[in-house]
Amino acid sequence: MTTAELISQINQKKSFLCIGLDVDLNKIPSHLLVKEDPIFEFNKAIIDATHHLCVAYKPNTAFYEAYGLKGWKSLEKTINYLNEKHPEIYTIADAKRGDIGNTSTMYAKAFLEDLAFDSVTVAPYMGKDSVEPFLAFKDKHTIMLALTSNEGAFDFQTQKIDNKELYKQVLETSKNWNNSENLMYVVGATKAEYFAEIRKIVPEAFLLVPGIGAQGGNLQDVCKYGLTENVGLLINSSRGIIYASKNEDFANAAALKAEELQQQMEEILK
Amino acid sequence: MTTAELISQINQKKSFLCIGLDVDLNKIPSHLLVKEDPIFEFNKAIIDATHHLCVAYKPNTAFYEAYGLKGWKSLEKTINYLNEKHPEIYTIADAKRGDIGNTSTMYAKAFLEDLAFDSVTVAPYMGKDSVEPFLAFKDKHTIMLALTSNEGAFDFQTQKIDNKELYKQVLETSKNWNNSENLMYVVGATKAEYFAEIRKIVPEAFLLVPGIGAQGGNLQDVCKYGLTENVGLLINSSRGIIYASKNEDFANAAALKAEELQQQMEEILK
Repeated sequence: MTTAELISQINQKKSFLCIGLDVDLNKIPSHLLVKEDPIFEFNKAIIDATHHLCVAYKPNTAFYEAYGLKGWKSLEKTINYLNEKHPEIYTIADAKRGDIGNTSTMYAKAFLEDLAFDSVTVAPYMGKDSVEPFLAFKDKHTIMLALTSNEGAFDFQTQKIDNKELYKQVLETSKNWNNSENLMYVVGATKAEYFAEIRKIVPEAFLLVPGIGAQGGNLQDVCKYGLTENVGLLINSSRGIIYASKNEDFANAAALKAEELQQQMEEILK
Repeated sequence: MTTAELISQINQKKSFLCIGLDVDLNKIPSHLLVKEDPIFEFNKAIIDATHHLCVAYKPNTAFYEAYGLKGWKSLEKTINYLNEKHPEIYTIADAKRGDIGNTSTMYAKAFLEDLAFDSVTVAPYMGKDSVEPFLAFKDKHTIMLALTSNEGAFDFQTQKIDNKELYKQVLETSKNWNNSENLMYVVGATKAEYFAEIRKIVPEAFLLVPGIGAQGGNLQDVCKYGLTENVGLLINSSRGIIYASKNEDFANAAALKAEELQQQMEEILK
C-alpha cells in the first residue's frame, strides 16, 4: 500500500487508529477455546466488529510464535483474511526484526512478500545495511524503532551522543538511507513532549504510536505535538480494545472501545 | 545448559566452534530438493558429519521464517533432532528479538521453553525490561548484540555517549540487570582489536563471535584479545562450513572445513 492510499483511508474513516492483535490464549473468552483455531476466531471476530473504525491492524509476532507452528498458522490465516476481506486496511507485522544484510532480506521476504503485510517493524541497532533490505520493497513500509514506550527506553535511546539523544541520531541518520521515503517510526505515546522534537527531524513521516490506554499515554497530548497536515500518526491500542470484555460480547465491547477512540480522533481532525 | 557444562564440552572436544545453520534452498545441493523436507535433511546431514568437531549449532531464524509454516517445521525438527541425538551440544536460536516486557516473555517462552533452545540472541535497543524477561529462564543464556560484524555497526554502536561507545555502554549497563550472569554477547570478529577493550568490561562473559571466514575475520587475532581462562568464546562459521560443497559430498566437505577450524582451535588451546 502506498502512503497516499493510507492517507486517503484515514480521511475517509476519520480515524487513524491501529488495533494491535496481540492474542493471549489466557485472556480471550473461554467459549473460543473449544474452536479449532481460537486465535484466528478471536481475530476474525475483532476484525469483523472494528474494521470500519480503524485504518490498520498490527499483530505482534511474539504472540503467534509463542504457540509454535499452530501460532504461525493463525498468523497466516489472520493476514490472509485481512488481505482478502479488507484489502484497503493497512497491515503491520510487529516483528522488530533486524540482522545483517542478506539475513534481513530473508525477514523482509517473509513478512512483506510471502505473508504480504504492508509493513514490518525493525530495530535500528545494527544500522543501515540491516534496514535497507526492508526498504527495497516497493509500496511497502519499514517502521523503525525510535523512541519506545517502555522504561528501558531510557537505558540507551535517550542517552546523548554529541549532545543529541540516540533516538534523534537514529531518526537523523536514517533519512540518508536508500529508499528512506519508505520509513515510518515507532514513537511511544508515554512521552508526548518528545513529539515536538521529533517533528523537527521528521516533519512528515508517519509515526506508529503505541502506549495509548493500557500504558498510560494521552491521545490529545500526542496529537498536539505529533499531528501533521497529512495526519502522520497511527495510534495503536491493543489490550485496551481487544480485551475490553472476556465474555461472549467481546467483539462488541471491542468495537465500543474502538469507537470511543475513533470519535476522539474525528474531533481532533476537525 | 549451564555455563559449566558448556565449558566442559569445550575442554573435551578441544573446540569452541559454533556452526551456523543458515539454510538457503538456493544454495543447498540439488539432490536434496526432491526430499519432503530438504532443509531438515540438509541440517541432519551437516549435524551427523560435524557434531564431534563443534560445541554449538546456531540456526538463524530468518532463514526458516522465509519459508513460512514449512520453515518453522524444519526449525522444530532440527532443534528436536539436536536435543534428542546430541543433548550435550549447545544450541542458539539466532533470532535477535526484543520487545516490551510481557511481549519479550512470549518470545523467551517460544525459544527457550517450547523449542527448548539453550539460548537466544536479543537486541539491546529497548533496554533492561526488554531483555530481563529472557534472563529469568534458569540454565538458559541470553546472547545480546554488542558489536556486530556488519558495516552498519558504525552507524550507532561505535558512536560515543559521554566519551564511551554505545556498545560499551550496552555491555556496562547490562551487567546490572537481574540474572546478568545468564548474559553472553555478540561481538563481530571483523574488529579483533576491539576485543581487548571489551574484555576490560566483561572479563569472563562468553562472546559469540560471527564474522570468521566469509566475513573476513581472523581466528588468531580474535583469540589473542578475547580468550579467557575458561575460553569464553564461541566462534561461529556458517557459510564457510555448510556450503563448502554443492555436491553430494557436501556433508563431508563441511566436516573437513569444520575440522580445519577445530584443529586451529586445539592448537590455540594448548
